[in-house]
Amino acid sequence: MKCGKQAVYYRPYSGENLCKKHFLESIERKVARTIARHNMLRETDRIGVGISGGKDSTVLLYILKKIEGRFPKSSLIALTVDEGISGYREEGSKLAKQITSKFEVEHVIASFKELYGYTLDEIVGIFEKSSETSHSACFFCGILRRRSLNQLARELKVDKLAIGHNLDDEAQTVLMNIFRSDIIRMGRTNLDTKQIHDLFVNRIKPLREIPEREIAAYAYLRELPFHSQTCPYAEGVLRNDVQLILNEMEQKRPGTKHSTLRSGDKIKLLIHKKQEIHPCPVCQEPATETICKFCQIMKQLHSLSTKNI
Amino acid sequence: MKCGKQAVYYRPYSGENLCKKHFLESIERKVARTIARHNMLRETDRIGVGISGGKDSTVLLYILKKIEGRFPKSSLIALTVDEGISGYREEGSKLAKQITSKFEVEHVIASFKELYGYTLDEIVGIFEKSSETSHSACFFCGILRRRSLNQLARELKVDKLAIGHNLDDEAQTVLMNIFRSDIIRMGRTNLDTKQIHDLFVNRIKPLREIPEREIAAYAYLRELPFHSQTCPYAEGVLRNDVQLILNEMEQKRPGTKHSTLRSGDKIKLLIHKKQEIHPCPVCQEPATETICKFCQIMKQLHSLSTKNI
Repeated sequence: MKCGKQAVYYRPYSGENLCKKHFLESIERKVARTIARHNMLRETDRIGVGISGGKDSTVLLYILKKIEGRFPKSSLIALTVDEGISGYREEGSKLAKQITSKFEVEHVIASFKELYGYTLDEIVGIFEKSSETSHSACFFCGILRRRSLNQLARELKVDKLAIGHNLDDEAQTVLMNIFRSDIIRMGRTNLDTKQIHDLFVNRIKPLREIPEREIAAYAYLRELPFHSQTCPYAEGVLRNDVQLILNEMEQKRPGTKHSTLRSGDKIKLLIHKKQEIHPCPVCQEPATETICKFCQIMKQLHSLSTKNI
Repeated sequence: MKCGKQAVYYRPYSGENLCKKHFLESIERKVARTIARHNMLRETDRIGVGISGGKDSTVLLYILKKIEGRFPKSSLIALTVDEGISGYREEGSKLAKQITSKFEVEHVIASFKELYGYTLDEIVGIFEKSSETSHSACFFCGILRRRSLNQLARELKVDKLAIGHNLDDEAQTVLMNIFRSDIIRMGRTNLDTKQIHDLFVNRIKPLREIPEREIAAYAYLRELPFHSQTCPYAEGVLRNDVQLILNEMEQKRPGTKHSTLRSGDKIKLLIHKKQEIHPCPVCQEPATETICKFCQIMKQLHSLSTKNI
């Protein structure tokens, strides 16, 4: 459509038919534009990139490496958190290592087990046995993963923590929050990168405008290796239902994911009110509740695991 | 579950099994609570009830008649707008008349044709022929229906205009606005009933907490006659997709419709900012754009229908 060469990708929401070169360029340009629009990066930033070995974080690292190369005062470091999900995480961590050594990016790996004394499998097992909570594995994993990445990033003097969330992830989150009536949560993350609190390393999501399908195509066309297994805990969770809904709507009405993302952004702006963040009195990590969610879980976890012995 | 009598209705989102008497009471109590919570009515209000002959407005009129009976200074008047949808509206209007005469409520009927010179069928036909717009029949109908009800209500000195929108309608609207990124529209209607503008008769939605399925059961158990045909224009519209989505989600996760409604209410409160309303310079009806949407459509319609002659 742009050059007369053989098209490799059709983009229903814009009507474009793109050859390999123009498709790859369009993705990189869109990521650069997203970064610029929200002032995600400064020229001197030390950028931490959370990588799991999956396609999103691999593409993110690849594109950020390209962009960062133009700014001699900036630097890149990859961060991987091993949640301890047996039969799943090992392969991802292996691929993450391959990728960072191929891209020649410094790489730090930490695990829930080292940091907190339990793997995710152990945590889920302890809570399941106790039947004291109906929280899903994703609930625990989310809290511990956010915390561990923030801790790692802070210790490694990272200025911005880049996360591979794509358009699908972001639109799903908007819809999940609507279905759960969790509007205040939508104001939690900032779109711009003003420092919210000095305990908190600002997170950026340079892929938030790129549909998952285009990230997969990009990884494939760039021949990037990635881990494509689905997390064993992801079954039956709300996110899966919402993913199906958005995929169907996008097919019927191309552009739905983008406008759902915009809805979330508009609501974010309406919320204004920054959540007050203070150091948790127990662990000194950033908290919005009196005692942080992590410490609440850990306390319950310790008492349960002692009871079980 | 409350009295040991035979249950006629199971309510998945609360786990209640209710006999006929307790089911009917629970609906009436919930409507009364909705009215009280949002200060929808005062004891001296002249209440206009928009009725179409369908189950929602029939149930609304029935319950409001019960409630209004307790307040001697209040009064009730039913308003029907005939859009001019051939093969559909006639039956609804006939039933609306039956219902108001059975309930002994004053009833005023007006039509798009009388008020604006065209039936909805004619408007849709003219725009279709011209291929100048891709708007659906629902777009035109929505604008003209809101306007005509407001006009009627104002002329009849109505204080509050009660509309039969149920929980499903309201939750669908929230989701449609999210999918279309139409957040500002969510702030348009007030939850409380402060007078927005003296050109504008405040609308109230006493059934907004009642699921459609419960309204159908209520109408059936009270043996209320109603029109259950679907509007011929309602095919393929976004609302239908969203209805399917919400019904499936509600089945999997009871309570989803209620929390979607809450999300909309929370966003409404965030928007604060009342839309500035002024009299349209062309027709003097309330407008938010420089010239009101209705006058924009009518102008286009006149020029198109002149061209076609």
